[in-house]
Amino acid sequence: MSTLSETIDSALRAAAEAHLRFSQTSVQQRAELMHAIAAALEKNSDELIAAAAKETHLDAQRLLQELLRTSVQWQQYGDACEKGYWMHVIIDTALPEKNRPDIRKYNRALGPVVVFGASNFPFAYSTPGGDVASAIAAGCPVVVKAHPAHPQTSELTASIIRNCIAEKGFGEGVFSHITDSSFESGQLLVKHPLTAAVAFTGSLSGGKALYDLAAARPNPIPVFAEMGSVNPVFILPGAVSTRGDEIADKLVDSLTASAGQFCTNPGVWIMEDSAEITPFLEKLQQNISNRPVQEMLHPGIARQFHSRREEVLAAQGVSLLGATAEQQKEGFSLPTIAVTTAEAFRAAPTVQHEVFGPFAVLVKCRNQAELLSLAQNLEGQLTGTIWGNDSDISAINQLREILTEKCGRIIFNGVPTGVTVTQAMQHGGPFPGTTDTRFTAVGADAILRFIRPVCYQNWPDELLPLPLRNRNHSGIPRFINGELTKADLSL
Amino acid sequence: MSTLSETIDSALRAAAEAHLRFSQTSVQQRAELMHAIAAALEKNSDELIAAAAKETHLDAQRLLQELLRTSVQWQQYGDACEKGYWMHVIIDTALPEKNRPDIRKYNRALGPVVVFGASNFPFAYSTPGGDVASAIAAGCPVVVKAHPAHPQTSELTASIIRNCIAEKGFGEGVFSHITDSSFESGQLLVKHPLTAAVAFTGSLSGGKALYDLAAARPNPIPVFAEMGSVNPVFILPGAVSTRGDEIADKLVDSLTASAGQFCTNPGVWIMEDSAEITPFLEKLQQNISNRPVQEMLHPGIARQFHSRREEVLAAQGVSLLGATAEQQKEGFSLPTIAVTTAEAFRAAPTVQHEVFGPFAVLVKCRNQAELLSLAQNLEGQLTGTIWGNDSDISAINQLREILTEKCGRIIFNGVPTGVTVTQAMQHGGPFPGTTDTRFTAVGADAILRFIRPVCYQNWPDELLPLPLRNRNHSGIPRFINGELTKADLSL
Repeated sequence: MSTLSETIDSALRAAAEAHLRFSQTSVQQRAELMHAIAAALEKNSDELIAAAAKETHLDAQRLLQELLRTSVQWQQYGDACEKGYWMHVIIDTALPEKNRPDIRKYNRALGPVVVFGASNFPFAYSTPGGDVASAIAAGCPVVVKAHPAHPQTSELTASIIRNCIAEKGFGEGVFSHITDSSFESGQLLVKHPLTAAVAFTGSLSGGKALYDLAAARPNPIPVFAEMGSVNPVFILPGAVSTRGDEIADKLVDSLTASAGQFCTNPGVWIMEDSAEITPFLEKLQQNISNRPVQEMLHPGIARQFHSRREEVLAAQGVSLLGATAEQQKEGFSLPTIAVTTAEAFRAAPTVQHEVFGPFAVLVKCRNQAELLSLAQNLEGQLTGTIWGNDSDISAINQLREILTEKCGRIIFNGVPTGVTVTQAMQHGGPFPGTTDTRFTAVGADAILRFIRPVCYQNWPDELLPLPLRNRNHSGIPRFINGELTKADLSL
Repeated sequence: MSTLSETIDSALRAAAEAHLRFSQTSVQQRAELMHAIAAALEKNSDELIAAAAKETHLDAQRLLQELLRTSVQWQQYGDACEKGYWMHVIIDTALPEKNRPDIRKYNRALGPVVVFGASNFPFAYSTPGGDVASAIAAGCPVVVKAHPAHPQTSELTASIIRNCIAEKGFGEGVFSHITDSSFESGQLLVKHPLTAAVAFTGSLSGGKALYDLAAARPNPIPVFAEMGSVNPVFILPGAVSTRGDEIADKLVDSLTASAGQFCTNPGVWIMEDSAEITPFLEKLQQNISNRPVQEMLHPGIARQFHSRREEVLAAQGVSLLGATAEQQKEGFSLPTIAVTTAEAFRAAPTVQHEVFGPFAVLVKCRNQAELLSLAQNLEGQLTGTIWGNDSDISAINQLREILTEKCGRIIFNGVPTGVTVTQAMQHGGPFPGTTDTRFTAVGADAILRFIRPVCYQNWPDELLPLPLRNRNHSGIPRFINGELTKADLSL
């Protein structure tokens, strides 16, 4: 047995061991741990941001926002853990005359969760990120595979989490941190018999490979892979003619923030062609020319950006609409907007797929019918956006219905970047946006990915798990014979 | 294109077309349809039971119970549809000072669902079964592949559903019925690009084959396959010594009801060996010898039963404890209890796997440690059962924790057959019990399999889907800024 597989085996054995105790901790105990982690992340913000800035080239202001958001995730998911709706406690008491037994069900932790950190969010989707926080809220131990692009940041945040776990007296196996950067370690983690679920944020090829590995296990396990998406933006004629400048400003801001390295980056802009859109196109050209080149997360991402950018620009029927006026620099982005027709877009899969970075393709349609048909043929997306005015109402209604089938989140007169951490958020979407459109990666409902229901039939009260006993020990809402209540059950 | 693939293609095209309208019907409209189907099934019970009795060889009393249960499923899931908790509406209003947009989320129908009927429940898990009822509740059109073992029953129930759908004015594509019996039709249904999810009840080999097909699609889709399970029963020393006769009666009743053709049939009985269990074993022998042979669902199932029965009895270390005193008959069951040791059981996978029919293996363990270790090594199960008295408390507590990780439902001092239709029911369990332990196939929460969340950001009220508007049009419970309420939202 190699050292690597020993390391992974021992992390998962420790996690499986910890699972038996950690899954039975109270929601209050876990909420307390999570609130402590939230506070510790904020307390160490200077050191964390300095490390992350060096490793990711993201600016300190953006990193501060991300760190605060990460802390808010621990806070909110901890609050949701304690509120306990996710536990979905159902108590149906016996009806002897109908031969109905007493049955009580609740959601329990699924088991050890393997989380893959992402390169583009060193905090919010990495070692201290939302996948880890939601798994912990569910009561699952976590084994994190740190993203190799920011090892020091990962290790600093891991040690904050480890310290909080130790201080609160939870066992060591609750959180493990694998720093090996090989693809092999990822494979071993997903294939390990004790792994119960996998969460991943990254590329389509990476996420799909993990999904395939998990589906081919002797016992398949769920994989929540949040992958690429071009996040189409539909700009309708009424909106262009009355608010073209505002839209051009917001879109280019959204496209170029953090060097375009967001999974919700707006990569495809779709509109009807006409003489009236000329001022809008000119405004886009002007905006993009003013944008600076920015150092990307790591040299590999920059190389991939330039290679994909050139590939799309070289495709049949695609031309350059505008780009930054700055010179290209090694390792830096090159903000760019390409332009094409619906026909050329449809003909070239390479143009339809994500270019990770500040690159958008503007697609001109001959008329509304072509625009709607193009929408109908889109793949699954994390988000879809519609810019429209009162005069666009018919197209808005049709597009909303089409996008509802294709997307997880549908934005009206806004931009897709800036994923608010709130329970109503749906950060997910049909394949290839994610591997499982039934769940979200952001917001407290992310907890729902890591639980499974178990029911107990005709058990004496004192032998039931605490949340199912007559007395409502955790004070959580429970459905008792169909009615939602926080009251104790008196029989 | 063959006729078969044309049939399937046109069913799924009609379903996809219907989905756009049906997913937007109100919960009240769908509940009304479902209640009408419940009533129509009961109204036609004489004709349905006569057809099913002829095709399945199950007795009329059992079939009446099953039909009433099927009607209750439509009724209950219709009620749950209307209550609307499953829709999980979350409204988080804008907080401009925190730069938080208005975001509103709810669960929507996933799309066309393919349902495979089961042979052993001509009503409850077939054409008018729980998978179909829960998909309809979610707002999903359904394409049913009728089970070929009871074509007439399937067609009669299909026509009842079709009539109700027509009477209520829903379009044709909401329900399609494929009567082709080939394996190829199943493959085509699962691989069809417009299929959004699959529900199946049947064998491990059948369910796993469909799972693998779905996972290998260009866009993988969820498969809810409820497969085999041996439903282990642990009979602890205190219970044996004080209630041996009662346990022996209930277990043999449970084992032989409906010729043992239940997925929750108790197939493995585990106890500590000692001189004190002799009266219990004698009582089992006596009970099983009195049981009649019964005609099984179809000749193929009977052949498979006898072949598996002989395979297990021929395994190393396995002997016959007792069997029916009646003569073997072609196409009939042969109620049987085998006996073996924990060591022999562990050594032979063939003994550990399900024998579909009235056949149980009693496993004698040398001591409690061996019994617990055997429990630890079980595969995933739909159910686990513990018989215990006060004197067994330590083993009960340990077994409950072990079984919680292995099973969907854990029964105390009872039998696993008789799956109550109630919201607290968890009919599911870790692989190979099912392909997705996170969901149930029975109870109104079965609806949760067929939905996905979608959120809308910053939409004007009048353009939002009805359940998300300020006015609570459907009167369903909604989380508004974290508080659950049925009130309208006033901004």
